[in-house]
Amino acid sequence: MTSFLKIQPLTRAGFAPFGEVIETQGSCRFAINAGFAERFHDLARIDVAAAGGRPLLSILRAQPRPTPLRLTLMERHPLASQALFPLQDRDWLIVVAAGQDPLRPQALRAFRASGRQGVNYAPGAWHHPLIVLTPDHEFLVIDRDGEGVNLEEAPFVTEVILDL
Amino acid sequence: MTSFLKIQPLTRAGFAPFGEVIETQGSCRFAINAGFAERFHDLARIDVAAAGGRPLLSILRAQPRPTPLRLTLMERHPLASQALFPLQDRDWLIVVAAGQDPLRPQALRAFRASGRQGVNYAPGAWHHPLIVLTPDHEFLVIDRDGEGVNLEEAPFVTEVILDL
Repeated sequence: MTSFLKIQPLTRAGFAPFGEVIETQGSCRFAINAGFAERFHDLARIDVAAAGGRPLLSILRAQPRPTPLRLTLMERHPLASQALFPLQDRDWLIVVAAGQDPLRPQALRAFRASGRQGVNYAPGAWHHPLIVLTPDHEFLVIDRDGEGVNLEEAPFVTEVILDL
Repeated sequence: MTSFLKIQPLTRAGFAPFGEVIETQGSCRFAINAGFAERFHDLARIDVAAAGGRPLLSILRAQPRPTPLRLTLMERHPLASQALFPLQDRDWLIVVAAGQDPLRPQALRAFRASGRQGVNYAPGAWHHPLIVLTPDHEFLVIDRDGEGVNLEEAPFVTEVILDL
């Protein structure tokens, strides 16, 4: 059985159960550097300290997947948050799952993010690996280094296709 | 007395005394997500845990300063690193100072970074506030939230001009 997953625009309210949207629009801001800069302050709950973890800054360079876009697996990081922000201003896609069974089609939510929106997955939030729409789309990533098992994966057994 | 500060291209070797250059070029990389992405791994020593600190993710939106570009003050964060990465692919400028007296003209170093290069200032490294060359140049910033005094400033008393 194949299910099709509709894509919604990414909003703070829609994404709230899964973490935070990282964006300047609507964020707390104040002037710094004698007025030569504004700071959009504290945009994500970076939570990487469990079990002696430390923050890790990396860059991901992602490639588009073949269409029709079949979801492959869901993953989560039980020990830490994971923040992603695009380095090129191009739309990208996010798939998350509510609750504890990430493979239930009814649990899945898909969002289209703009190139000026990042997300921070809360610890334990199920999400699909990165889905980009253009070649060599890069993201700055803040996640966790440290001991302990911080990755769980759940491969799809039924077919779920993103309704692009 | 006016001194003029020459600008060098930003390189890992040149910046090493002050922290790390954050860039994909020349970095350790490996494939992830079934080959649909590469990870350029662990690009900066994010060091924000002193005195109960936690990582803070923010966005800065900076504006160009008037030319000739007079340095105003140097600052440093004694308790933590501060990482900056540009969100638009445009050159920007970095001024740092070697040693403990940031106002000595001989201590100053200026670098021109590309829009694909960020930096992570090491804890205690003296640096000038953000210098951009184009309006609304934004940066993702990872620095520290927490108790304690994490900002020292040293205003220039003699004139130092960036030799653009």
